[in-house]
Amino acid sequence: MKIILVPDSFKGTLSSTEVSEVMKDAIIKIIPDAEVKAIPVADGGEGTVDAFLAAVGGEKITLSVSGPYNEKCESFYGIIREGKTAVIEMAAAAGLPMVGDNKNPLITTTFGVGELMADAISKGVSEIILALGGSATNDGGCGAAAALGAEFYDSEGNMFVPVGGTLSNISEIKTDKLCENLKDVKVTVMCDIDNPLYGKTGAAYVFAPQKGADENQVKLLNEGLINFSKAVEGSLGVDISKLSGAGAAGGFGGGAAAFFKGELVSGTDVVLNTAGFDKELERADLVITGEGRIDSQSIRGKVVSGVAKRVKPFNIPLIVIAGAAEEDIDQCYDMGVTAVFSINRKAEDFSVSRYKSKENLYKTTENIIRLINFK
Amino acid sequence: MKIILVPDSFKGTLSSTEVSEVMKDAIIKIIPDAEVKAIPVADGGEGTVDAFLAAVGGEKITLSVSGPYNEKCESFYGIIREGKTAVIEMAAAAGLPMVGDNKNPLITTTFGVGELMADAISKGVSEIILALGGSATNDGGCGAAAALGAEFYDSEGNMFVPVGGTLSNISEIKTDKLCENLKDVKVTVMCDIDNPLYGKTGAAYVFAPQKGADENQVKLLNEGLINFSKAVEGSLGVDISKLSGAGAAGGFGGGAAAFFKGELVSGTDVVLNTAGFDKELERADLVITGEGRIDSQSIRGKVVSGVAKRVKPFNIPLIVIAGAAEEDIDQCYDMGVTAVFSINRKAEDFSVSRYKSKENLYKTTENIIRLINFK
Repeated sequence: MKIILVPDSFKGTLSSTEVSEVMKDAIIKIIPDAEVKAIPVADGGEGTVDAFLAAVGGEKITLSVSGPYNEKCESFYGIIREGKTAVIEMAAAAGLPMVGDNKNPLITTTFGVGELMADAISKGVSEIILALGGSATNDGGCGAAAALGAEFYDSEGNMFVPVGGTLSNISEIKTDKLCENLKDVKVTVMCDIDNPLYGKTGAAYVFAPQKGADENQVKLLNEGLINFSKAVEGSLGVDISKLSGAGAAGGFGGGAAAFFKGELVSGTDVVLNTAGFDKELERADLVITGEGRIDSQSIRGKVVSGVAKRVKPFNIPLIVIAGAAEEDIDQCYDMGVTAVFSINRKAEDFSVSRYKSKENLYKTTENIIRLINFK
Repeated sequence: MKIILVPDSFKGTLSSTEVSEVMKDAIIKIIPDAEVKAIPVADGGEGTVDAFLAAVGGEKITLSVSGPYNEKCESFYGIIREGKTAVIEMAAAAGLPMVGDNKNPLITTTFGVGELMADAISKGVSEIILALGGSATNDGGCGAAAALGAEFYDSEGNMFVPVGGTLSNISEIKTDKLCENLKDVKVTVMCDIDNPLYGKTGAAYVFAPQKGADENQVKLLNEGLINFSKAVEGSLGVDISKLSGAGAAGGFGGGAAAFFKGELVSGTDVVLNTAGFDKELERADLVITGEGRIDSQSIRGKVVSGVAKRVKPFNIPLIVIAGAAEEDIDQCYDMGVTAVFSINRKAEDFSVSRYKSKENLYKTTENIIRLINFK
């Protein structure tokens, strides 16, 4: 029996890697000779590199780069597919947890993310998977681009590395060195949000407050992003003003598209493509996915729909195991989900059950497998 | 596909009849042409008659009898198996809810239960299923026996109908009329507890406090039961002093054995035998049972073990759906349970989830059936 595990994280309790490990243990208890392929799905935030390494194997590279405040910090990225692909999570060099309470999207930088990319390129990778998520920055990815050779000039011709608060000063961008550095590298950007670069649903208005910006700073950042968009169009001939997802990670979605010719792809699709999910499905008997919470929103959103649309043509049962299964999920069955189970083994508030996530998940998986394995 | 439902009640939320109805609705939603046989398991308490009628069909007889305080009250019993068998729940004539806050096991009587039996006998039944459970009494079933013709005398030769507080006064018992009335009737007693008639684990010490007895009254009741046991042995030649289950229903377990030659049988077995469960299993594809809470105690106890031991030889999957599935239940798999699922669809305290029992049970059943029905 071949079982594929493609869980999302259980937000606030278990990473996707932990979820797949617990599920696997429960399966092996009941069917010791089961072939279990674990593809923990990363959402682009913290844990993305680990999820890829768990899914396809590879090497974790650690190195020192610039942190959000240009301070030196220990960071890492992953090398997978026999050295051909690097997986870089921006949270590892510009992540919100790295700044603690010292949040300031006007001056934080993605420079370290570019250094991670440069290191990977120096090792000869031909593809970089860039995971946007959990950022402390609003610099449009200018810092990362600068680390890779982009040059930014103000109206007086002074070169500088723009941050959120100085995006408005960009007058010209030169990318000759950048393009040379990236010429043999395909960049795939993991991005699960649709927000545009600027405006009321853009990076500054929607995400900057949680990065520490007050009302006036949000306005300033938004104006900076508008200028950034104009400068990109003027200097690079690329229009990112309407690009869906450009507002991800403080405008890094737009910057990655402009500077790295990055394709913005849903995180789930990137993971499933990289792990060869469709190929794995050919011999699979069962697929189990998981979500911290499944509701009418999450069904349309990410992991469940992404997995379901691929599983459906193969006519393999697809089970969702969720921390919480809301009532309005009937459409998921049409999408290809066979059944949805919750991990809660008794009536307990989340303040109690959150500490039992592992054992509840284990027991629930175990009993599903017991049922499926009945002979 | 033939599915048999044999749920216990979900204590405090759903009767076994309600549980089986919800399960059936969920099954029919997914497999409209499924053959669903519902055998809600009664525990001998309130709802037992309804459960039998739901399981095998029959007629509900309503009549006026004596209540716990000899007041007139509307009561009922069931006639099943083409008039051959009566199902009588003592809770319908001597039930604890009938006395409200006016609890007093020293003076309450089972007389009305005997009247129900007499009515059934007058209709020509050859078997009475007597469900002990939820009683307000501690009269050893003397009231019921008196209603059916037994005569109780004190040491001065005065005839009386003993109640809990006067069991000590019994000097002699005559059962000529009683035996005549019961001569063609087999009495099967539904009894799920092992307690002896008297002593520290007997009827008075264990159960009388919840029926309103204080410490001194418990002692008095216990002494009464000791005398009752002696009188029974002296007059009827039956020793109920060590009988397992004699302490059920205020000593009615012992009284039923002595007066009616009643066989004390687990409620689950009575229901399953009456409903022809073993015969139904011959063509069944799946059995689902249910418990409000499954733990190491309940597994050994009643419904789950009773059902599992019968299902196991047929090699049919047996699923337990529980309001709460505790962690210490691994032995149930050896007993023949295939898998255990909880109805909780998200992390919620019982104070919240208790009002969602029906929909949670429905959704859980639905998803199990979706999984089983996958083609």
